[in-house]
Amino acid sequence: MSEARASHASPQRIAVRDERMARMALACVSEPGDTQLGEIVAASGAEATWHSLGSARRDTRWGRRLASVRLAELIAVMRHRRLRFVIPGDSEWPDQLDDLAHVGREKIKAQPLGLWVAGPGHLKDWAARGVAIVGTRTSTRYGDAIATDLAADLAASGVTVVSGGAYGIDIAAHRGALAVRGRTIGVLASGVDQPYPRGNARVFEEMCGHGLVVSELPPGERPSRPRFLARNRVIAALAIGSVMVEARLRSGARNTLGWAEDLSRVRMAVPGPVTSAFSEGPHEQIRAGATLITSAPQIREAIGRAGQDLLPFAKGPARVVDRLSDSLTEIFEAVPGAGGLTAAEIGAKCGRDLRDAIAALGELEDLGLVRTNSGNLWVLRPGAVG
Amino acid sequence: MSEARASHASPQRIAVRDERMARMALACVSEPGDTQLGEIVAASGAEATWHSLGSARRDTRWGRRLASVRLAELIAVMRHRRLRFVIPGDSEWPDQLDDLAHVGREKIKAQPLGLWVAGPGHLKDWAARGVAIVGTRTSTRYGDAIATDLAADLAASGVTVVSGGAYGIDIAAHRGALAVRGRTIGVLASGVDQPYPRGNARVFEEMCGHGLVVSELPPGERPSRPRFLARNRVIAALAIGSVMVEARLRSGARNTLGWAEDLSRVRMAVPGPVTSAFSEGPHEQIRAGATLITSAPQIREAIGRAGQDLLPFAKGPARVVDRLSDSLTEIFEAVPGAGGLTAAEIGAKCGRDLRDAIAALGELEDLGLVRTNSGNLWVLRPGAVG
Repeated sequence: MSEARASHASPQRIAVRDERMARMALACVSEPGDTQLGEIVAASGAEATWHSLGSARRDTRWGRRLASVRLAELIAVMRHRRLRFVIPGDSEWPDQLDDLAHVGREKIKAQPLGLWVAGPGHLKDWAARGVAIVGTRTSTRYGDAIATDLAADLAASGVTVVSGGAYGIDIAAHRGALAVRGRTIGVLASGVDQPYPRGNARVFEEMCGHGLVVSELPPGERPSRPRFLARNRVIAALAIGSVMVEARLRSGARNTLGWAEDLSRVRMAVPGPVTSAFSEGPHEQIRAGATLITSAPQIREAIGRAGQDLLPFAKGPARVVDRLSDSLTEIFEAVPGAGGLTAAEIGAKCGRDLRDAIAALGELEDLGLVRTNSGNLWVLRPGAVG
Repeated sequence: MSEARASHASPQRIAVRDERMARMALACVSEPGDTQLGEIVAASGAEATWHSLGSARRDTRWGRRLASVRLAELIAVMRHRRLRFVIPGDSEWPDQLDDLAHVGREKIKAQPLGLWVAGPGHLKDWAARGVAIVGTRTSTRYGDAIATDLAADLAASGVTVVSGGAYGIDIAAHRGALAVRGRTIGVLASGVDQPYPRGNARVFEEMCGHGLVVSELPPGERPSRPRFLARNRVIAALAIGSVMVEARLRSGARNTLGWAEDLSRVRMAVPGPVTSAFSEGPHEQIRAGATLITSAPQIREAIGRAGQDLLPFAKGPARVVDRLSDSLTEIFEAVPGAGGLTAAEIGAKCGRDLRDAIAALGELEDLGLVRTNSGNLWVLRPGAVG
């Protein structure tokens, strides 16, 4: 491939054929959340920015890395690992990330140049119903149980559980979503082919198979402290709201909730015993205005309005779900996004009898909102929500 | 005594010589929080109301009890038990109770006719710095420890701990205040000579010796469910703010915090594990706007402004404490109302060195705000606060 031969050369000699490759190349020479680069790209476009870097002095922060860009190798890795690189303008690009261009925190003020994505999910659709669950790496059984239960309940109702794949609360949340075969997005501070920590490798594999693993860092990259902090802004942006479960006062989760606040997302926290240091983070958040959460329905309630605002189809002309009767809406909201439930189970969730539930499901099916899967269980139709 | 001979007669023949006796007699024929009676007393005065009851039909709620009023016996019991009956206009009457005439909740809308009081404290001054700590009777060790610790810390800083003397959170709070020889008020739903429950008798005795035990019910009266509910309004009124520690969703503590809200008092709640039913009450309160509390300083912070508004001397012309420098105020606020601390301990609480603390305490002593006690420990001068 031509890129392979050109890969040791200056940017002019690397064949960057389009916006996508330019963004990929720029991601290789910059760190996540580079405000200055973000502003140049916003003003001049990615291709022009890339080509102008050729004249950048080798001792600038970007120039220093130019020589090590190996675009052809990168693309080969992406093919081998079945990764895609999603950029603004793509149908899968979550507009939610664009909010990052307008807020600043700790000098990071930039949307990602793009996201490397692994997994079968549709990033934009999934993020439109995303709830981040974040917390300490050294969680207690109390915190793990809460994170897993909340995630499973949310995911079973079609909400996407977003987290960072770390030990403790993060992975407990991902596991909860996967346990009900629901939607979950792992946002990494490393390349998606280098998921960190290794101890969670099996969960990452499962997410690549049934969920989504994303990163703004190119494949092959390793995490670092600044990368974790920059990553947190992507977690917050890819969700309608963020929930803190067990965190000390100083923690990455606090950083994520700070981003959620800056992004006008819903901030939530689960309280705990005041005698535990891991309750200090959530309690601080609640005292500062975050919504106290004790159950998944309370999360759905808290994100309800905000979710409507963020859901892309909320502005569409033909949004069927907005015109459902309260009674149909209740049944509709009980239908899982994945996995499936019997009509009886759905009825039980809503306190309706089987006959009633079957009638309502039939109507929803006619409207194209739900369907039965191969196991004859009811699930949402793709596109029915977010 | 003439009242003794007249005690079986109609109200006209019981010698009610003044406002105080009229209120006492009215308390004997009515239930706490009788809105209708309260309105008549407010319009006509207690004496005229009492005399008009003579024409009340025997089958009215008040008329029914007229025959059983034994004022002379009541006064004899009060002398024997060293009880006083505090009424509006008395220097010890807490104006805070007058707020009850203006709010309504569950049809109770009346300030007490008066309060029977046992114990050496000054009711008005103590209530002006009152914080109610309330919760379940069937508390866990977690709740008990929190209630005791908060109460001890608050009482050591001159705050009065108000509660209902019940098993569980109430008595843990009283005990905490008594442990540091601080101020505490027990508000009963029975006569102050019949403290309920009996199991807390030793704590009641200690409160009668060092604190205050009050009730709007005449000596000899027993508690009932409506009396507990009416009592809660007095707890809320005698405090600047109310803190809920462990309570189920349906609980007396919820009723007390409802009163606190109606009375524009500060509502606070201590969170706990979401897995405990006793956390449901506090979490509900916090979700509804109560301040999440994890420590006594947070309570002091929450009541700070409200306390200033309620403290009677706040409106006085010569309030020295209002004109203290921030630095002196900090030291002043670290001086306990009872028990005493060394200058070094006070300095340590404020992060000042000993020299600094001694200089500040000397200034406060010159201003008449603090003094050293027999053990050479620093305490507030009576009257320095509230």
